[in-house]
Amino acid sequence: MHASELSTPALVVDLDALDHNIDTMSAARPGPRTRPHVKAFKSTALARHVADRGGHGSFCCATLKEMEGMVGAGLDDDLLLANETLDSPRLARLAAATRQRITVAVDSPETVDAARRAADLARCEISVLIDVNVGLPRCGCAPDDAAGLADAARRAGLEVRGVMGYEGHVVGEPERAARVRGLARSLEHLRVAHEAVGGGLVSAGGTGTFDLHDWADEVQAGSYLLMDTHYARLELPFRQAVFVDATVISANTRGAAVADAGLKSFGMDHGEPSIIGQSMFFSSDEHATFFVDPDHPVGVGDRVRMIPAHVDPTIAYHERMWVLRGDDVLDEWPVDLRNW
Amino acid sequence: MHASELSTPALVVDLDALDHNIDTMSAARPGPRTRPHVKAFKSTALARHVADRGGHGSFCCATLKEMEGMVGAGLDDDLLLANETLDSPRLARLAAATRQRITVAVDSPETVDAARRAADLARCEISVLIDVNVGLPRCGCAPDDAAGLADAARRAGLEVRGVMGYEGHVVGEPERAARVRGLARSLEHLRVAHEAVGGGLVSAGGTGTFDLHDWADEVQAGSYLLMDTHYARLELPFRQAVFVDATVISANTRGAAVADAGLKSFGMDHGEPSIIGQSMFFSSDEHATFFVDPDHPVGVGDRVRMIPAHVDPTIAYHERMWVLRGDDVLDEWPVDLRNW
Repeated sequence: MHASELSTPALVVDLDALDHNIDTMSAARPGPRTRPHVKAFKSTALARHVADRGGHGSFCCATLKEMEGMVGAGLDDDLLLANETLDSPRLARLAAATRQRITVAVDSPETVDAARRAADLARCEISVLIDVNVGLPRCGCAPDDAAGLADAARRAGLEVRGVMGYEGHVVGEPERAARVRGLARSLEHLRVAHEAVGGGLVSAGGTGTFDLHDWADEVQAGSYLLMDTHYARLELPFRQAVFVDATVISANTRGAAVADAGLKSFGMDHGEPSIIGQSMFFSSDEHATFFVDPDHPVGVGDRVRMIPAHVDPTIAYHERMWVLRGDDVLDEWPVDLRNW
Repeated sequence: MHASELSTPALVVDLDALDHNIDTMSAARPGPRTRPHVKAFKSTALARHVADRGGHGSFCCATLKEMEGMVGAGLDDDLLLANETLDSPRLARLAAATRQRITVAVDSPETVDAARRAADLARCEISVLIDVNVGLPRCGCAPDDAAGLADAARRAGLEVRGVMGYEGHVVGEPERAARVRGLARSLEHLRVAHEAVGGGLVSAGGTGTFDLHDWADEVQAGSYLLMDTHYARLELPFRQAVFVDATVISANTRGAAVADAGLKSFGMDHGEPSIIGQSMFFSSDEHATFFVDPDHPVGVGDRVRMIPAHVDPTIAYHERMWVLRGDDVLDEWPVDLRNW
């Protein structure tokens, strides 16, 4: 099938660009030094491709639904829920469904207790990472509280594998020097916590700091695989690999036109998507109104290709991604891990 | 089931508030004077409830998927695709799947031709509304072009039912007086077009102008059913009826806490969602970080209730909505019309 035959809006993946991104990361951080983050693509088919081509066997997830899907797909050699949960029954079912030991982030007595109850219910072992606040005001305990939490976890019979900390306030800094400085401050917190906690694993980072981590054992990166215009500002060695193809459905206003992909096709928290060769004006629920470049005239029925400003919440709107090489549709990958 | 037993994030609908909204609209604009817009809720179960309680038998849709779902649910007495499409084969299958005549918006020779080809393929009749630009730079022909398009449609054997125009640049104006002025300007365009086109139907408007239309035959309103914080600014007689329930999963920072609903739970184009009783700080993919009101302390494991800033792209992220009366879960309505 030719890409122009896809019903629009269509989420499409440029396989050559994706493979370039996989190869670039696996050369820089091979095997267990990268823990690809499933939240950025929400597809077991894409995860399988990353595992096969990139040689990464450990993944992390943001939701139990993602964890369950990865277990179901047999991609569960070393799965980390890099997020807090209190849902012990569901965590227990997950732990019982895999032969491997799952790991969950904990940052409070309540989340330690939830993991312990899940282990009891499932009658199997669960490991934890102590989630440390390294400057992003979100989850993670204060570095000084990490030792106490680790002790509580060990007393509860949970294996404490080490620490994790996500410098989410740093990874999007456009200037590399600013990322270097911000990361150094964040890692000070993580070092303090790791010394107090012990364990063999330090997990940190993301796409924006993937090549700045020399101390952490692994980087939790996901956006590098498909990319977006927000990360493109960082001039990383990754290519744009995901797009939304849309059809021009109206062109009545001189100098402007309307394509059939809008607010329900794109995560909007990083602003408007871009249209290749055109200038975006504004989005409506199912429309992109754009200014037509005189050098790239379009008419009703033509296709345009759009780039998301933020990949993760864009993917979560779509049922499937179409895998392209050039204009040939090679495959269809379900976005099977969305919702909760 | 009690609402606190729902796995979070959970999209919940307050049935009493929804029914208040249905009753308020059907009192103001009974039966065919309101054409509820399916794009705002994307659920045939909710549409059925609106039809049964509100007595509205005509609906409009923004996508072919919504149209197909409404036909499949038997809610197809008078269905309008209030949007342009070029997908004749799919439109033909839709037209063949219902015993009623479907109506589609057209605003160009190309969309007229697409409707004609669909009618030919399906061997049945299709009606059109001439979509007129009334000031929103999106779809719709210039008022002066409406007569020519109507002639072309009639020559192609399509019934021209009349005109539609959506004053989307007006419906969100917070000041009622500004909406009145804006609507008057828009309706001048629509009157010119209607005089030239003829036909018995003038379709216009939305939630923000529902009580300002005396000339148009019907108003295409959808947001009034569930509402959001953006429309709440207009002080309309509709109540907030949809929420996202979330669980507090982390509370390590003094004065702040984190709930498990983020960018993949809320359309963000109108800004951050709100948290009842708390002050929102920022959203991440699966997190809402918020400042805790000292008068409403929360701890890990507590529930919070959030309000979307924009209802339509929020609903499109969710698989289902839970129907509540107070804290009792009465029903589960699938969001069966999302995607395309």
